[in-house]
Amino acid sequence: LGEKKYVIIAAGGYGSRMQTDIPKQFLPLAGIPVIVHTIQSFIKAWDDLVFIVVLPEEEMERWEKIRKKFFKRDHILVTKGGATRFHSVKNGLKLVKEKGIVAVQDACRPFVSKELLMKCLEITLEKGNAVPVIDLKDSLRELVKDASRNRNRARYKAVQTPQCFQLDLLKQAYRQTFLDTFTDDAAVVEAAGHKINLIEGDPANFKITTPFDLKMAERFVSTSP
Amino acid sequence: LGEKKYVIIAAGGYGSRMQTDIPKQFLPLAGIPVIVHTIQSFIKAWDDLVFIVVLPEEEMERWEKIRKKFFKRDHILVTKGGATRFHSVKNGLKLVKEKGIVAVQDACRPFVSKELLMKCLEITLEKGNAVPVIDLKDSLRELVKDASRNRNRARYKAVQTPQCFQLDLLKQAYRQTFLDTFTDDAAVVEAAGHKINLIEGDPANFKITTPFDLKMAERFVSTSP
Repeated sequence: LGEKKYVIIAAGGYGSRMQTDIPKQFLPLAGIPVIVHTIQSFIKAWDDLVFIVVLPEEEMERWEKIRKKFFKRDHILVTKGGATRFHSVKNGLKLVKEKGIVAVQDACRPFVSKELLMKCLEITLEKGNAVPVIDLKDSLRELVKDASRNRNRARYKAVQTPQCFQLDLLKQAYRQTFLDTFTDDAAVVEAAGHKINLIEGDPANFKITTPFDLKMAERFVSTSP
Repeated sequence: LGEKKYVIIAAGGYGSRMQTDIPKQFLPLAGIPVIVHTIQSFIKAWDDLVFIVVLPEEEMERWEKIRKKFFKRDHILVTKGGATRFHSVKNGLKLVKEKGIVAVQDACRPFVSKELLMKCLEITLEKGNAVPVIDLKDSLRELVKDASRNRNRARYKAVQTPQCFQLDLLKQAYRQTFLDTFTDDAAVVEAAGHKINLIEGDPANFKITTPFDLKMAERFVSTSP
């Protein structure tokens, strides 16, 4: 599919939930940093790729070593993260010069399948955006003041990445003034007045957030083909 | 802790998401049915236990064989499931004759830790109920008509089991007329006018719902102590 594909790898955060000094995207998973798995999953599926890795400034040196060790190609750019995910992705978008498709990917979501990536691409080309979601497995409660209330989980979806957009659509959306509700790209694009196209995600495409997730990821990768 | 403890193992459902003929609670996990792991996790933590397994009628025979093979003790009762989880738990409650604590547990949640169980017990004795919850890892969207909208995931919690209650409280709550919103026991007790006490759950206490979950559970159990 002849479009240029930009993948913004969002790794601006510090991963306080992981209880480690090294940001979680750099932790080894089967001996290879998580973020390297994440990038490789795109290389296996898409061609004509440019990666834009968005990082805290103090992690640039660590990243540079990893990049040199694992990637020969030149199409991996890097830029500084901002105060929030919104500001990080906005910084990443500044490096996108040509027309194409933009995918925003969590650095710590290393198991996105070729199948899901092909579906994302297809729907984005057809409808302007594609966002993978999965069912909630557990019941859901909403916190209200000092209490909580039951919500109908069938009416909610858990949102994964990559969140994929036609470049013009995403660039235009990121011109908006920041709001607290901009917790992911779908929220930003939606606020700009566009309908989000939900597609069926994949339970295996999970995000590594806690030490438990990393443990599960280790087990998953060690027995996968 | 001298209270009698009833554990209602809710296994009334058919597990359509697992794409197998055998209900998922009976699928082998490290060679042992999932439901046996679930029951064993309580035996490791609590004393003075009575289990009430709630099953579809056509699964009684299969269960009886499993029970005889894995459990010597007599304190495992069985009863028929109903049309919904509410009706299944209500059937289970009919077998509870003495005072005590009631825990309602998903049959397919085999990894509840001793630590979490002790905390559940303590809070239930102190406050009348305890329901373990964890943070949502992914962004959250709510489905609205033919579209969806971003929700602030920080304001929501994923609800686990065991959901634990003083017997009188739960029995009284289950006298209510069924509502569609009664998707778990917390919802039923809440509708009866009681505050739900949320406690910090455990990511490892996950529910086996999809083939992916079972795969992860296999890996988890095979390397656990």
